[in-house]
Amino acid sequence: MGNNLTSRQQDYAQWYNDLILKGGLAEHSDVRGCMVIKPYGYGLWENMRDVLDKMFKDTGHQNAYFPLFIPKSYLSKEASHVEGFAKECAVVTHYRLKNDPNGGGVIVDPEAKLEEELIVRPTSETIIWSTYKGWVQSYRDLPILVNQWANVVRWEMRTRLFLRTAEFLWQEGHTAHATKEEAVAETVQMLDVYAKFVEEYMALPVIKGVKTASERFAGAEDTYCIEAMMQDGKALQAGTSHFLGQNFAKAFDVKFADKDNKMEYVWATSWGMSTRLIGALVMAHSDDEGLVLPPRIAPLQVVIVPIYGKDAEARQKIDDKAAEIIKELKLKGISVKYDNDDTTRPGWKFAEYELRGVPVRVALGARDLENNVAEVARRDEKTKESVSLDGIANHIENLLEDIQSNLYHRAVTFRTNNIRKADNWDEFVKILDENSGFILAHWDGTAETEEKIKELAKATIRCIPLDNPMEDGACILTGKPSTQRVLFARAY
Amino acid sequence: MGNNLTSRQQDYAQWYNDLILKGGLAEHSDVRGCMVIKPYGYGLWENMRDVLDKMFKDTGHQNAYFPLFIPKSYLSKEASHVEGFAKECAVVTHYRLKNDPNGGGVIVDPEAKLEEELIVRPTSETIIWSTYKGWVQSYRDLPILVNQWANVVRWEMRTRLFLRTAEFLWQEGHTAHATKEEAVAETVQMLDVYAKFVEEYMALPVIKGVKTASERFAGAEDTYCIEAMMQDGKALQAGTSHFLGQNFAKAFDVKFADKDNKMEYVWATSWGMSTRLIGALVMAHSDDEGLVLPPRIAPLQVVIVPIYGKDAEARQKIDDKAAEIIKELKLKGISVKYDNDDTTRPGWKFAEYELRGVPVRVALGARDLENNVAEVARRDEKTKESVSLDGIANHIENLLEDIQSNLYHRAVTFRTNNIRKADNWDEFVKILDENSGFILAHWDGTAETEEKIKELAKATIRCIPLDNPMEDGACILTGKPSTQRVLFARAY
Repeated sequence: MGNNLTSRQQDYAQWYNDLILKGGLAEHSDVRGCMVIKPYGYGLWENMRDVLDKMFKDTGHQNAYFPLFIPKSYLSKEASHVEGFAKECAVVTHYRLKNDPNGGGVIVDPEAKLEEELIVRPTSETIIWSTYKGWVQSYRDLPILVNQWANVVRWEMRTRLFLRTAEFLWQEGHTAHATKEEAVAETVQMLDVYAKFVEEYMALPVIKGVKTASERFAGAEDTYCIEAMMQDGKALQAGTSHFLGQNFAKAFDVKFADKDNKMEYVWATSWGMSTRLIGALVMAHSDDEGLVLPPRIAPLQVVIVPIYGKDAEARQKIDDKAAEIIKELKLKGISVKYDNDDTTRPGWKFAEYELRGVPVRVALGARDLENNVAEVARRDEKTKESVSLDGIANHIENLLEDIQSNLYHRAVTFRTNNIRKADNWDEFVKILDENSGFILAHWDGTAETEEKIKELAKATIRCIPLDNPMEDGACILTGKPSTQRVLFARAY
Repeated sequence: MGNNLTSRQQDYAQWYNDLILKGGLAEHSDVRGCMVIKPYGYGLWENMRDVLDKMFKDTGHQNAYFPLFIPKSYLSKEASHVEGFAKECAVVTHYRLKNDPNGGGVIVDPEAKLEEELIVRPTSETIIWSTYKGWVQSYRDLPILVNQWANVVRWEMRTRLFLRTAEFLWQEGHTAHATKEEAVAETVQMLDVYAKFVEEYMALPVIKGVKTASERFAGAEDTYCIEAMMQDGKALQAGTSHFLGQNFAKAFDVKFADKDNKMEYVWATSWGMSTRLIGALVMAHSDDEGLVLPPRIAPLQVVIVPIYGKDAEARQKIDDKAAEIIKELKLKGISVKYDNDDTTRPGWKFAEYELRGVPVRVALGARDLENNVAEVARRDEKTKESVSLDGIANHIENLLEDIQSNLYHRAVTFRTNNIRKADNWDEFVKILDENSGFILAHWDGTAETEEKIKELAKATIRCIPLDNPMEDGACILTGKPSTQRVLFARAY
């Protein structure tokens, strides 16, 4: 058929872009750096959001909503936070437009200048902690377990759909605790929630770890992360969970009276996941024919395409049988579409649903009906089989689970094949240039060496994996002693 | 107990504010005009959103997401739209901050001025229609049935929690159609969806109608609305659905080839509902003891409070019985909380849940258990009854439906008692001043008279009710002939 897609080998970045656009997930808007998330892409996000939201609620969190705007001075209250976030951001300076006296449409009214500029939130720690100050008096007000689903803006000069856009959608959890232990436990719990979500629903294996000091969230004492491998071997950070210590409590003076009536600063965490994950999903599973979406979060799980002949009676029989199957699938909670649009041909439809990554396609023709079968195609392996119409809904239900699991195991195998050890600088660079993928290597533990490696090889330390085995070795760059390997990769 | 609430009679506006704050729904933020929606208030919004979202999907709509920012020039493209929306809004002029060379924290980087200012969306017609231009070529691309859940900003000088805030949450549907008839039918369909939602879930009767030309949405050919009556007799517009004609299609040059391959402008609708509705909910049903929330959307439907004595064994029995009831209620999909917090007394809890408007409260003590009963209190009527523990979950399930229906009928009766006819100016003013409420009166149909009435009596034409009976009469202000009464009220 030919969807005119660029292949992965030709140009990986272009392939990605083609898939997002032609697969109907998103497009660039007229506003620089901002995207339009189209219904199909938003349907995917809704499914991801609903699963995550339930996981948050099951772990005791509630949602709330905080202002879009942050007073400029708030960003400066936490010293390292301002360094990380107060730079590239959208600044609101005025609150009124007026008609141009010279007839040029509307202009900004110079009289309506804000006393203090407002920043469109790049993340909400500051406005939330200034709010929590009013919520916390005693240990009985803790913990606060709150999450927010919101849009945020970080001005980006070079943008890519989903992966890096000026505005994006995300969730940000912000919790407040009476003890350090409890806050650390929360940080780790939410990392586990993310890992479970990404592995079980997005079918993407992740490595859990801790960031080095230089890669930490601005204002955090520890940043935990999950790292996933894309098909080009690069890493994509799929979620982060931060232990913020008492930094924001101190910056916004949030204290509580403990059981002995002693005033203490509150301990904090924050954790977030964004529409960026959709980019990871696309890059991890899709192929040269288009998107490949994991059944558990696919906006559409099954499409049924009738293969009509000219006989009206036979067409009716196909429609009736399809209606029967659809009813059974819906009872099982499976989303299904019957595409009986007469103006496009089955072959065109096949290519279209392949492009859109619909996990299962069923084709139903008159001869199939005579033989009491249907042709069932799975998107992941692009194989077809003839399936008996008796119990076909059960078959499809199992097939969807099989596809989900196959995608995950395929990704695990790919990752296993692309994690390598490097024991010296030449090996390290050779692997990066020839194989890409993740590299486990020794590092002397200093920020200087980390920075130097980044400069020389364009690779960063993605994380220090949790439960990392201790092993004596020598830093690949400086040869200085090291006690464990860390995870390097080039990254999105 | 005393929640220190202002009573309705003392000061209606203060009563409202007390309820929002002390009921835990929302609070003012540090950012002028922006509110924080607290978990309890957001839980209410989530329930409302989920019901509405399902109704939108059941009528064939999908969700999508469009940029937060709108280029300033876009607002000017539709002539009447710019008059209505391009005035009080948040204007982004810069995209970077930098460290103050004089050491005063961060300042706006003058080098990072945008070529064209961006407006934080007050509504999204312009950015969406500039997008639809790329989506529509032929009649086969129509209709587009898209909705967006988003935050919007309209700079307001005087704000009130939920009712009028600079930033608020809403949904905005934007549809595109091949014919005028289809677009009008969509406009009316969505008005009906809103009316059904507000009446059946929020327990609030509404009057459906059409706005006069002066009260129309900026850019619409017709604005349909639903109007609800608050307890002070004032009107609150609870949702609007606009037939936009071809105005935005012309402004953004969105044409399609019809079946005869003739190019035509697309027909449009838009429709919206916002967090403002939470304000309506509070003002319609609540009382001097606190919030009264309709069971179908209440964040928490039932609370069970144990009445503990000192006997540990008896306490255990209460806990066990409560666990049983909770299990049964949850199986029925009823949300329930067991408040066995030992540090507050039952009386304090009763007042607290009354304040928060939890529809049903169950108290369970040792003596109750001996008698195989529990004390069940309903929030709407503040009555209590002793209910057998056998089948108590069924009893509560029915009670919740009864409360829902009682709230609706109470509101209908209140409204019926407060709609009056006025046949001349003196009657009109007297009713407004002495009784408040809605007034059906004749109007000569001119914008001048409408404006004059607004000036003199502070009352506006809320709508021309749908299916309004024709009746000859004379305008209450000018005495000129009129063919029907229209609905007047003072309004929020």
